[in-house]
Order: sequence, then structure tokens, then C-alpha cells
Amino acid sequence: MRSESEIIRGLQRRFRAGGGVRVGIGDDAAVLAGDRRRDWVVTTDWLIEGVHFRRQTHPPRAVGWKALARSLSDLAATAAQPRYALVALAVPSATSARWVDEFFAGVKALADRHGVKLVGGDLSSASQITIDVQALGVVERGRAALRRGARPGDVLFVSGTLGLSHLGLAALRRGRAREFRRAVRFHLYPEPRVRLARLLARRGVTAMIDVSDGLSTDLAHLAEASGVGARLAADKVPVVRLTAAEERRLGVTPWALAANGGEDYELLFTLPPRRAARLPLKLAGVRLTAIGEITRGRGLALVGPSGRARPLSVRGWDHFRRR
Amino acid sequence: MRSESEIIRGLQRRFRAGGGVRVGIGDDAAVLAGDRRRDWVVTTDWLIEGVHFRRQTHPPRAVGWKALARSLSDLAATAAQPRYALVALAVPSATSARWVDEFFAGVKALADRHGVKLVGGDLSSASQITIDVQALGVVERGRAALRRGARPGDVLFVSGTLGLSHLGLAALRRGRAREFRRAVRFHLYPEPRVRLARLLARRGVTAMIDVSDGLSTDLAHLAEASGVGARLAADKVPVVRLTAAEERRLGVTPWALAANGGEDYELLFTLPPRRAARLPLKLAGVRLTAIGEITRGRGLALVGPSGRARPLSVRGWDHFRRR
Repeated sequence: MRSESEIIRGLQRRFRAGGGVRVGIGDDAAVLAGDRRRDWVVTTDWLIEGVHFRRQTHPPRAVGWKALARSLSDLAATAAQPRYALVALAVPSATSARWVDEFFAGVKALADRHGVKLVGGDLSSASQITIDVQALGVVERGRAALRRGARPGDVLFVSGTLGLSHLGLAALRRGRAREFRRAVRFHLYPEPRVRLARLLARRGVTAMIDVSDGLSTDLAHLAEASGVGARLAADKVPVVRLTAAEERRLGVTPWALAANGGEDYELLFTLPPRRAARLPLKLAGVRLTAIGEITRGRGLALVGPSGRARPLSVRGWDHFRRR
Repeated sequence: MRSESEIIRGLQRRFRAGGGVRVGIGDDAAVLAGDRRRDWVVTTDWLIEGVHFRRQTHPPRAVGWKALARSLSDLAATAAQPRYALVALAVPSATSARWVDEFFAGVKALADRHGVKLVGGDLSSASQITIDVQALGVVERGRAALRRGARPGDVLFVSGTLGLSHLGLAALRRGRAREFRRAVRFHLYPEPRVRLARLLARRGVTAMIDVSDGLSTDLAHLAEASGVGARLAADKVPVVRLTAAEERRLGVTPWALAANGGEDYELLFTLPPRRAARLPLKLAGVRLTAIGEITRGRGLALVGPSGRARPLSVRGWDHFRRR
């Protein structure tokens, strides 16, 4: 099997944009020409038992919430306002009616928070619980934030704390949920940064992506789409704080959680230096941190506290890469 | 597990339409307010290995074609013009690159036929090949054809031949594909009736649905949504022709194939008598047949050649019903 990126590049060649398609395959979401005032933004995201969640550790309400959160986060990455969702659910026929009810209660809880209406879906049987959620949103015409657009000299920012979600996952897997309540909650009920993204778009972000696959992978996506490189300041990245004992107990390190963990659904974005200087430390209640800068060329460098740079290893999520 | 219909009714109560939602959960597709001239129509449809197809009998190109055809047929049922599609594909990691290539070649072949652009999707791993396709289309504002709207006295029509698809499936399963080439082709590469549906809408259909679950089930859907009953003339239904020997060999009967087989993706629709009388025998190259009429009350009756009526048994597809 080829890597996900190779398959996607093949599809981009085969299915070219054009017509009413402002942005097609390869960004967080597709942008379609709407009317004179606005564009439509659409996205679709898998959530699959055994791949993205486990029944033992993920209650049905969290599965429903998370399934929608992934799609809303993709819309947020383009600075769109989510409007509608469709939920395709396939379950083994032994699945209880209660599981299905709780699942949709989770979808509804997050949908209501963002004024999103569930307008359709499809039900089927399958050997594992399989969910695919489509979300549709609107954005001011021609103003969707994209992965491409970062320029050398731009400052690179990230919202929130990276690695919190996979810290919660590690705690869940090792039966230590009580000690890491906040991280577990953040893992099970992530908050797509919809309002933050809308505010950032008004401040002129040049590129934006949501951190769904881990900082290293998503930065690589943003840099590749923009045709640039980046220097990341290792000690600036907002990672989780853990004692040495906690690291040992969970078998994780804050840096690995942030760089490769994924599922934080924070926003990674770039601003020209002047605009960057005017960015507040917090927006929509979420902390914003400058973590590096965009460079010419294609390399991704990680700069340590000593000032020494080494190549950033990109090790986030790829469904088809051997591990 | 409850039946699909019970789950859907629960969701309709939980997620009410309103706002920009002209038609929400429960029809073939959702209808969303667009601009002054047009509405958007969106739908999502599963195609799952072991449920909807088998790798042994369904080549990857047919799987790709069929996955998109299901969604385009839902758009056709509302008389929408398909525009865009998103394809979510999850496959076991051992799946060959060739399978994936051929799958997308099948998607593209049908997409090109209808001027549909593939604008996005999602890739994942899964234990069985799982596909979910979303399609978006446009329809003249307020003019979407719906399941509801049939009135007592309306004439009930169906396009094409019913049961052809499951005749093809039966032939494939019994290794008799060569004897039933046309049926096999129709099963593997169904033609969503997009153009026909657009023409029918102009002729003032009062209700329309695509025959994806079998005539009995889809007629029940249309009648329930419209709050009416129907009388079906058994000898008018356009079924496949088989010799007694063929029936034995394949273990099927023309009536069972038509009533319960499904996957024909023909259109079932109603017209007031005056408009019905002006309908040609063929439109967009597809035969149209009057097969009954809409009645008051809620019953579905099957009228035999002798004129004797008995209740129509509804036995099409329900993913959660025990068989």
C-alpha cells in the first residue's frame, strides 16, 4: 500500500478542481462557490472502532461527540461557520439500542453548542462500529483560510496545549483516567476551535490547519501546501507538564505527545510579523503561542534551547504506513 | 436492535428541521436553502463489503461506480442536478494499490458521465472495505421532488425494469454471469436516473423516490411519507422475464426480485391523472409504466389479474431486521 499522501496526490492529478470548485482535494475541506456573498465548505471524516476509538475506553456519547468534532474542526481550519451535518453510522447488529441513543445524544450535544443541524445520514450494519460524518459550513466569499498561503518570514502559532488528547488516551488505556481527568475529558470531548478560527481569519492568517495528526505531520502538510519550510522552537511548543514518574507510568513524553499524538484539534496558523505582533495572548478563551517561523526552501527544522537546529522528524498518523 | 425506521423516527423527533433546512432527516436527501434561485441537496450513502458487495463478485471499478451511483440516485429522486461528491474510503491495510486505483477509476467514470466533481474525502484503515459517499446537487428553489406529496387518485409509475439488479447479483453468485450479461452489467454499473428525474419534475410529479430497497419497501416509504395508501396492479409491474428453468437454476422469481430485491435505482413516482395521461411511454430513453394508484387510508394492496386484492407484504431491505 502507498502512503496516504501518495494516494491523495494521485487523486489530485486525476480529479482536478475547476468549475465552482475553489479548493478541491487535499485541504482540510473543499470550498465551493455559493452565491455572491459566501462560499460553502464541506468535509467528511471517518471515526472507526479499533482505529480511532475502542468500545472499552470510549463511551458512546464521546464517540458521537468526537465524530462530529473531527468534521467541525476541519471546517474551523478554513474559518467557516458550521451549519449542517450528515451522520453515516454502521454498527454490528448486536449493538444495543442504548449505544445508538447515547451516540446520537453525543452528536446532538456538540451540534447544539455550534448551532449545527443534523439533516441526514445513512444506517447500515458492519463488523465494527464505523462512522462517517460530513459537515457543511459557510465562509465569506473567497475568504476561506487554507493550508497554502504561508510565506517566508511569517510567524507560526498554535492554539492551546498540544499532546493533551493523547495524554488522556494513554491514561484511559492504562486505567489511570482519574489522575488525568482534564486530559481524558479533552480526549473524549474535544472542542473544535470554530469561534477562534473565525476571529483569526479576521486578523489575516496567511495559512491555517487543524492539528489532527500531530504537530509534526500537520506542520509538514501546511509547509508542503505553501511550498515553504519552517523552523520550530522546541522550547516554545506548549506541551503538557508531567513529572518523571508520570512519564514512566504512562510510557509517554510531553514532546512525543505533542509532535506525534494528534487529535488535539488545535489550530496551527501563520501571520505576517506585523500582524503577529498585534495578536493577543488569548482569543476566544484559548491561549495562542508563537512556536517558530516560516522559512524559504522545504526543510522543517527543530531548534533546541542551545540554538542548534536539527531536522524535525515527521511521525504523525498515516493509516497506510507500516509502524 | 430496533428497525431502521424506528431509529430514523427517533432521530426526526430529536433533530427537527427549521432554519435553512427545507427537508431534513427521512427523505432520500436533505434540501437546504441556497440563494434566491436554487436549493442545495445533500445525501450520504454507505457501501460496505460483506453487506452491499463482495470482493469475489464485485470488481473494484464496479464498487467505485456503485458507491457514487447510490448517492447520485438519491439526488435524482429529489430531481436535483448532481454537482459534487466526497468519497470516504477505509480499507484493510493489505488492500492492493491496484484495487484502490481501479476503485477511483470507477468513481471517475460515473462522475464524468454526470459532470460531477470529486472535491474531497477521507482515507482510513478498517477490517472490511467500507465506503461512504456524499453527493451535493442543486435544484430550482422550492422545487425538490419529495417522498411526501402523493394524493389519493394519483397514478403510480415506475421507470425501467424492476428486479434486474438482483437478477444480476443472483447470476454472479451462482457463477452464471455469462448467461445474464445485461442483468450483471446493470447490477455492477447501475445508471442513476438523473436526467429522467429532471424531466419528470417538469411534468409535475407529486412524489418521487428511488427504488433502492425493493418496490415493496420503497412504495411503503413513499406512502407513509405522503400519508396515503396504494393499490398496486401485480400484472402491470415491469418485472424481468425468466424461463421456469432459469428461475429454478437461480432460485429466484421475477416478482420477488422486483418486490424485494432492490438496487435497481429506478424511479417510483406519482402524477395526478391528467398529467399521467400526457406522460409518454419513454423519457430520456427509459420506459415508464403505470403500476397502480394512490388511495385514501394507509393500506398497501396488491391487485391480482382476477381483480382480487390482498395486502402487499413489505419485505425489502432493513439492516437491523432479523432474517
